Amino acid sequence: MPLSFEVTARCPVTGARAGKLHTSRGTISTPVFMPVGTQATVKTMTPEELKSLGAKIILSNTYHLYLRPGADIVAEAGGLHSFMNWDRAILTDSGGFQVFSLDSLRKITEEGVTFRSHIDGSRHFISPEKATEIQMQLGADIIMAFDECIPYPCTYEYARESTLRTSRWAKRCLLTHKKEEQALFGIVQGGTHRKLREMSVEALLSLDFPGYGIGGLSVGEPKPLMYKVLSYTLPLLPADKPRYLMGVGTPDCLLEGVARGVDMFDCVFPTRVARNGTILTRKGRLVIRNARYARDFSPLDPQCTCYTCRNYSRAYIHHLFRAKEILGLRLATIHNLALILDLMAAIREHIAAGTFARFKADYLGNNQ
Amino acid sequence: MPLSFEVTARCPVTGARAGKLHTSRGTISTPVFMPVGTQATVKTMTPEELKSLGAKIILSNTYHLYLRPGADIVAEAGGLHSFMNWDRAILTDSGGFQVFSLDSLRKITEEGVTFRSHIDGSRHFISPEKATEIQMQLGADIIMAFDECIPYPCTYEYARESTLRTSRWAKRCLLTHKKEEQALFGIVQGGTHRKLREMSVEALLSLDFPGYGIGGLSVGEPKPLMYKVLSYTLPLLPADKPRYLMGVGTPDCLLEGVARGVDMFDCVFPTRVARNGTILTRKGRLVIRNARYARDFSPLDPQCTCYTCRNYSRAYIHHLFRAKEILGLRLATIHNLALILDLMAAIREHIAAGTFARFKADYLGNNQ
Repeated sequence: MPLSFEVTARCPVTGARAGKLHTSRGTISTPVFMPVGTQATVKTMTPEELKSLGAKIILSNTYHLYLRPGADIVAEAGGLHSFMNWDRAILTDSGGFQVFSLDSLRKITEEGVTFRSHIDGSRHFISPEKATEIQMQLGADIIMAFDECIPYPCTYEYARESTLRTSRWAKRCLLTHKKEEQALFGIVQGGTHRKLREMSVEALLSLDFPGYGIGGLSVGEPKPLMYKVLSYTLPLLPADKPRYLMGVGTPDCLLEGVARGVDMFDCVFPTRVARNGTILTRKGRLVIRNARYARDFSPLDPQCTCYTCRNYSRAYIHHLFRAKEILGLRLATIHNLALILDLMAAIREHIAAGTFARFKADYLGNNQ
Repeated sequence: MPLSFEVTARCPVTGARAGKLHTSRGTISTPVFMPVGTQATVKTMTPEELKSLGAKIILSNTYHLYLRPGADIVAEAGGLHSFMNWDRAILTDSGGFQVFSLDSLRKITEEGVTFRSHIDGSRHFISPEKATEIQMQLGADIIMAFDECIPYPCTYEYARESTLRTSRWAKRCLLTHKKEEQALFGIVQGGTHRKLREMSVEALLSLDFPGYGIGGLSVGEPKPLMYKVLSYTLPLLPADKPRYLMGVGTPDCLLEGVARGVDMFDCVFPTRVARNGTILTRKGRLVIRNARYARDFSPLDPQCTCYTCRNYSRAYIHHLFRAKEILGLRLATIHNLALILDLMAAIREHIAAGTFARFKADYLGNNQ
């Protein structure tokens, strides 16, 4: 087995669970948040900085790396870990989400998807086989089956057709995948239709993946609807396999996802908004460019112990953003990631201590 | 004395000298290169990264800090060191160079200079008194007299008038300056006219500054002409005071400046070209975006031991630049600064060992 998973604690009130995901590149305590390194770099950060924040696994995007620099160059470099100097675990997505986001630029058939590069407009074709091969070349520890991420809203008919196709594609990925040290996860689709989610889970379970992604959420649907889909979908998945809610990463969604039994998350949210000057704090968000922070010599979040909060004031970071200085993007990214990773560590501790439900209520109460 | 200087070694062949500049924030071995932190940050870098490269003193720009965030905010933060989290020495320029670079936006009188902000077009007036007061507020360890940087080429008449005015301004700066822990340096001007340089030195020496800048060079004149001006100007300055060649920082100019007795340098060159993807190596420059580096898995400079060269390949940094990733700017900046600071360390060692002349010839021979 390239990967093994054990549940080590369960919340007595919610569906939350803590666990250990053992990979050949270290053990990852779950629930875990994976910072996103789209183009073989978590934007603005070095690997050492990510480690100092406690990141144990990062996500990178197959679509982007396939187009640039190309999977062959990454393979020649000895794989993604070596290319980007990151020796902890990596998960790559399948490229499906990005390809399907291209919208008018792509065409879907049973065989796969034809699309145009967002970089230079060049034509490309990705099939389940090709997505798997590319991910084998990249060499991540966990890779994802090639799926179609159904948009929201979407007709039942289209969602059904797409979900059935994604299940057929999952099988083709599995048949293509030949890399023992790598784990291939299936992805549950089905949009916001309970029947289709059940159908998707059933098809995937027959293929027996070592872990399952929950895709097609956080794509524009109201949050309560996302929570509802999670509430009826997660209990269908085997308790002894990790469950990964794709593309979700705001504090409220992390807490609600964990409460429903999610083990893994990824999202560009904390890093993307950081570069935009939006700072996450334990009491909500602040926009650091705002004039009110020009003479505020307190740290971004007085409760935070990250490098940024230990050493710099809001006034300084306000200045850096106004002056368009890269250090501002770095300091904000460090802080936002620290806040999310600290939240996940607190979640794990509270699940172990049996106090998660209370912690969740308190956190959501403060974070308005 | 806020500052003291001692010469510890002299080159037996050239005019090069090694020394120690003692400040209240540590001793700086000279000849020294000061990385430039224009807007209270050395672009892309944290203070810890600068320290790990061996930087002992950085430069920051009064003009920029005066406009943004404003000297009052920096003072309220406890001064520039505290504002930017840098506890080693800082030198601020007087703002003269930037103001005079504004060209059509400024007007000079005996009293001072009226100019428009490059940020918002607002009108400002800086006099020698005001430039000194701003620098007192910023709180750097070494500050510079407010001078006019004469353009090249320039008529003898204008250069003479300007140089005389700069000398009168130097006196006004000295009379304004009341901060014992801060050292105020005078600036030798005079353009490329030997007689005016002599006149400038004479006027400054009568004011007895603790150190002297050499201004108005590297402003477009041919390098041999700059070297010539240095050759006849530096011997006029007292041997026991530090000499700072302003705005100079390419390897060849550093070596030629040191050979003529310069102790201190600053320049945006290594950091600015880094962000443009131009990499300095011990064998010349390379443009990392060039397609030839896409599959080059060797370090930027095989002879370099910096963080970047220990951990990343040309192929990866090529990818980061192509993908417009900030980590690329960071890694290139670290490397270019490391190369320049390593060069300065080697220069100091060779002066101490009496082998500087040979080292200089070898370095310039390799670095074509």
